[in-house]
Amino acid sequence: MPNISKIAREIQPSATLSLKDEVSSLEKEYGFKIIDLTAGQPDMGPTEDVLEALLKGGRLHKYGPVQGDPELREILSEVINEEIGVKYSSQDIAITVGVKGGLDILMRVLLSPGESLGIIKPFWVTYPESARLAYGNPYFLESDENLRPDPARLRKEVEDENIKVLLYSSPSNPSGVVYTEDELKEIAKIVKEKDMWVISDEIYGRFVFDGREHKSIVSIGDMRDNAILVDGPSKRFGIPGWRLGYVAGPREVIKALTKLQGHINSGASRPDQHAVCVAYTSKKAREANDQMRQRYERNRDIFVKGLNEVDGISCVKPEGAFYVFPSIEKLFGYKYKFDGKEYIIETSVDFRNFLLRKAQVAGVEGAPFGMDGHLRFSLATEEANIVSALNSIKGASKELYL
Amino acid sequence: MPNISKIAREIQPSATLSLKDEVSSLEKEYGFKIIDLTAGQPDMGPTEDVLEALLKGGRLHKYGPVQGDPELREILSEVINEEIGVKYSSQDIAITVGVKGGLDILMRVLLSPGESLGIIKPFWVTYPESARLAYGNPYFLESDENLRPDPARLRKEVEDENIKVLLYSSPSNPSGVVYTEDELKEIAKIVKEKDMWVISDEIYGRFVFDGREHKSIVSIGDMRDNAILVDGPSKRFGIPGWRLGYVAGPREVIKALTKLQGHINSGASRPDQHAVCVAYTSKKAREANDQMRQRYERNRDIFVKGLNEVDGISCVKPEGAFYVFPSIEKLFGYKYKFDGKEYIIETSVDFRNFLLRKAQVAGVEGAPFGMDGHLRFSLATEEANIVSALNSIKGASKELYL
Repeated sequence: MPNISKIAREIQPSATLSLKDEVSSLEKEYGFKIIDLTAGQPDMGPTEDVLEALLKGGRLHKYGPVQGDPELREILSEVINEEIGVKYSSQDIAITVGVKGGLDILMRVLLSPGESLGIIKPFWVTYPESARLAYGNPYFLESDENLRPDPARLRKEVEDENIKVLLYSSPSNPSGVVYTEDELKEIAKIVKEKDMWVISDEIYGRFVFDGREHKSIVSIGDMRDNAILVDGPSKRFGIPGWRLGYVAGPREVIKALTKLQGHINSGASRPDQHAVCVAYTSKKAREANDQMRQRYERNRDIFVKGLNEVDGISCVKPEGAFYVFPSIEKLFGYKYKFDGKEYIIETSVDFRNFLLRKAQVAGVEGAPFGMDGHLRFSLATEEANIVSALNSIKGASKELYL
Repeated sequence: MPNISKIAREIQPSATLSLKDEVSSLEKEYGFKIIDLTAGQPDMGPTEDVLEALLKGGRLHKYGPVQGDPELREILSEVINEEIGVKYSSQDIAITVGVKGGLDILMRVLLSPGESLGIIKPFWVTYPESARLAYGNPYFLESDENLRPDPARLRKEVEDENIKVLLYSSPSNPSGVVYTEDELKEIAKIVKEKDMWVISDEIYGRFVFDGREHKSIVSIGDMRDNAILVDGPSKRFGIPGWRLGYVAGPREVIKALTKLQGHINSGASRPDQHAVCVAYTSKKAREANDQMRQRYERNRDIFVKGLNEVDGISCVKPEGAFYVFPSIEKLFGYKYKFDGKEYIIETSVDFRNFLLRKAQVAGVEGAPFGMDGHLRFSLATEEANIVSALNSIKGASKELYL
């Protein structure tokens, strides 16, 4: 058999794979019922009006415009303006196969081989692989101790590492940090000074807590020439399986993205695009999103309070998205016994396995998000699951020793 | 504004773009009604049972397996076995975002930068761009004068150019040539000798004419370790807008493809995947496909006979797919008058424009398919369109002069 490419050998699989293996082996061997707090998606689905629109969408069976359904792009133009106060024409928006599908093509459009993508820590696991798949060079930019952007340091690192494209998510997956307008202005200033691109992943933009407003860097000053917005309907309407996202940005970028998309995959499913037009204009769908956000906000209150009561765990309070990303670094060096064996916790994977074995709670290790001293838990579940997970974690933590 | 990548500047847009511009400007300026024979897709849509299944599919709103719907992969395992006599397990099949989405990831899996993809001429326009987007090097392999593979020449070129991956479509888009078992055996021998990969694009496998049987290189001898099959439901069920394809091949390749797809786009739309399970098992859908093939076969008979009656046009009779790819090279050097101006035909684009202006018939120029002396017409239309296009072409050709 001939060999496969270097990149196909080197790219890391999605972080959740080894986790799934561990979960199913524990479930099989010990009969565990594990509380799953790993979900990167809502626990709710689309409203009925959206589902019904799929049927009509199915009749759009021929190739559609590679850039995406024109009606959907018109609607998005309105929605973006309403939500973040920036007017993109439908020509400046392209529909992609999820946010991943948008980022993959953006990396190929913005980075020539060897050029650098600066990713603010902690980050969504796919970002570095997305750059590597375009033969770009991912570089990880430090945040401050509260997981917030650190402009002075950012400026220096961006200069030293000759970063061409800056990428972050706000609200942040995994930290739940929501960048303030002042922070965005500081970032915008650096982007302009260095004449870089900045990609703002706002897929969690409809999940901000405590009455905050979601702000976008594309709305700041003269950022329209440098900033690219990525978002999509997956999280807000509970349809990640439909594989839809979009990119809005300078026309030159959208044109190049569309040209490449014409060869890469011809764009997203037309039936799904059609049905999503209904979602973005449906009162029901908006209300469902509001209810979901309120539930996740309650879950956050319960979970963060509880986690901070555990010795050695400390947790920045998420302002948005639907994750908590506690630091568990102080528990490194601790040991526990399971099934007659002693284990020591030295990495986030070890801690993840400790929780699986001793608390039957599943979170995702922090390492692939760029911070090995952390763990990511999802809030996108029933309150009852949050409460029992918390009790189990508290109980298990008492069995740790030095 | 910062610059975009070299590749984003260099990739050629899909061939039909300049054509669309020309068509709409002629329609606007002269009120032309142009007969469109450019379609790369069936003129029929999915059957009702398939459409209805979309509604249930919509409820699959969460992320699904990146490799694709397990039920669909089981069904495909059966279908492939039934149609080409090769038993792939569902683990050796991955669902992709159309055949394009499969090829894009395959290029990244099989080619390291600078490695060569050998593409047999004439070829589907996306093949070379797909290699370039993976920083591979496309090389065009000559066919014989009847547009059939030429094993002796192929062996030499593959050796000289150090080809790592061979790619062709059979039935061929654009030529309609269907490789015989003997031809496939010759190609297989070369692939084994050089220990290359070969990708067989069989998206037109259900469109073979004159009672022929579609044969696949994956069914030959010990080709399973070197050959990769790409296909999908788009053409056979008339659903290219749904963006579904699949790749079947050695497990190592499918595993790597799935790993990359996890970062690139997470796979195809779940509702569409679910509905397509119904299509592949529906008697109605199969019958609709049979009827469509019969119609296109009749269109071929009429069109090829007619084209060969035009002085200077000669046409190999397509054995499958739904295109004809006549040679128009003998008409290079000829002139015509339109709207008071004289034009000379020196390229396939010139000939395409001649037909648009003088016959109001749209075909696609041969250049992006690797053969500038040709034009591609689609048979996927009503017989009446084929008949009037033919009459118009005959009429227009009489106005050519040297």
